[in-house]
Amino acid sequence: MQDREKAFIRALVRSNATFGIGDDGVEISNFVVANDAFFEDVHFKRAWGSLESIVEKCFVVNLSDIYAMNAIPRFCLLMLTLPTDFKEVGKLAKIIGNCALKHKVKIIGGDTIAGDKLHFSLTFLGQRQKSRILTRQSIKKGDILGYMNPSSVLTHTKTQAFGKNTKILKTALRFHQHRKIQSNTRFAKPILYPKMLLELNSIARAGMDISDGIFMELPRLSHLNRLGFKVFKPKGDWLYAPEEYQMLYAIPKNKLKKMQNFAKKHRHSFVPFAKAVRGKYRESKKNWHT
Amino acid sequence: MQDREKAFIRALVRSNATFGIGDDGVEISNFVVANDAFFEDVHFKRAWGSLESIVEKCFVVNLSDIYAMNAIPRFCLLMLTLPTDFKEVGKLAKIIGNCALKHKVKIIGGDTIAGDKLHFSLTFLGQRQKSRILTRQSIKKGDILGYMNPSSVLTHTKTQAFGKNTKILKTALRFHQHRKIQSNTRFAKPILYPKMLLELNSIARAGMDISDGIFMELPRLSHLNRLGFKVFKPKGDWLYAPEEYQMLYAIPKNKLKKMQNFAKKHRHSFVPFAKAVRGKYRESKKNWHT
Repeated sequence: MQDREKAFIRALVRSNATFGIGDDGVEISNFVVANDAFFEDVHFKRAWGSLESIVEKCFVVNLSDIYAMNAIPRFCLLMLTLPTDFKEVGKLAKIIGNCALKHKVKIIGGDTIAGDKLHFSLTFLGQRQKSRILTRQSIKKGDILGYMNPSSVLTHTKTQAFGKNTKILKTALRFHQHRKIQSNTRFAKPILYPKMLLELNSIARAGMDISDGIFMELPRLSHLNRLGFKVFKPKGDWLYAPEEYQMLYAIPKNKLKKMQNFAKKHRHSFVPFAKAVRGKYRESKKNWHT
Repeated sequence: MQDREKAFIRALVRSNATFGIGDDGVEISNFVVANDAFFEDVHFKRAWGSLESIVEKCFVVNLSDIYAMNAIPRFCLLMLTLPTDFKEVGKLAKIIGNCALKHKVKIIGGDTIAGDKLHFSLTFLGQRQKSRILTRQSIKKGDILGYMNPSSVLTHTKTQAFGKNTKILKTALRFHQHRKIQSNTRFAKPILYPKMLLELNSIARAGMDISDGIFMELPRLSHLNRLGFKVFKPKGDWLYAPEEYQMLYAIPKNKLKKMQNFAKKHRHSFVPFAKAVRGKYRESKKNWHT
């Protein structure tokens, strides 16, 4: 998100017309509701891969937001623009339908219009669990922050270890429009682990899925929780990697062992990297999206 | 909506991944949820009027869908693209905030990204009333179809009588980009009558708000209800006018007097124009949107 978009949101919040802004979704009645745009030439290039992989990614990044808040995705509204030069209308509908079926989500409405590019905007409704909604807030001083790293057994290739997306996205942007990107990467094909998330969410104090990169999320978490973070893991790709769509959790210190055991059961590791401290966290680096 | 968009929706429905498609919104738990795109150069031209009037119309056409289903708009998710040449970011946020406050809606999330044009996509959640949700279905043979026509006392000018939008939209499209459109028209500034709608909705068997024009809605209603319509009012602008955002109601024949009296109380008239009969209704005329 660029400065202008941030300025817009700040001004909107000042208007007193907002509620629950700050998390990926918001709790309304029994549901968590979230909306995300997935626009051609902003979030993806059509040349990067198949229609299937584009639709799957569009769904997964949204579903990930819902699971991250400890809810189960049930319904979806789809806003779609169809470019006039786009010939595969029926095929796209079939792919979207199959993707929704696969993820057990019903498409309950939306809007389809003609446009210059293939843009998606999805609104998801997730059903809340009996256990509480997980938000980005309520981190306490002394809590441990960590991210989930899937074991190489689970992933497409070894390049799937957390943090490798930096290189892949840089390459994709350099060659944009002109060639496909590696399809066996989490950048092209993020994977959800819903069963694990719903289990781990109940241990955590706060959580979110990492879309812009941990270095982008830490200042936001710091602001929301009025706490600073002492990063004890040496800086590296893990800090800057965008679009990992893995969970970042804040847990009470005494739950670290439990968290790591649960993660292991699901063939992941929970990698602690920071401790919540008094103060404010600042990091300045630009976002990946243009 | 053009043929390609129709084909998309038909194919999507065939996938079995949809639920409740056919009405403007769908009932989920205690809410009616609806999504509509409001895109620059598709639904409006920036030169047509002030930012205030664009935002107001964007909200009203969505709110109208929610009231039409007999629910009260409460929450909104806003997907917005900000063109790089757009300088009034703070002003726009303030206008949107004020518009939400005015219509008693909380903005609970969304997405803001950079784009070529000023596009909006709004998802509204409306709280259902104790009385039932009103849909486009359950029309019975013999029912009377009619539309609401606000009295000239209520409207900006006399040109506001139902059906005048045809001429206004034709003019707007002819001079598009280059000049403002009359701001004292329902096309530029549609008006909501929520109190009246919530009262009349309870009398009706089915209802919807008229966005594409009655001639576009009749075949859809015919298909949904497996009934035809015998139009007894002479054809005219009232049949073809788009973007009226007034209600079309189907009522039992014996409720006509009651409906007309209620409408009168709110300084509207209920204008009957057709009767539901056995069969199928067909009309072929193109839509207004490109």
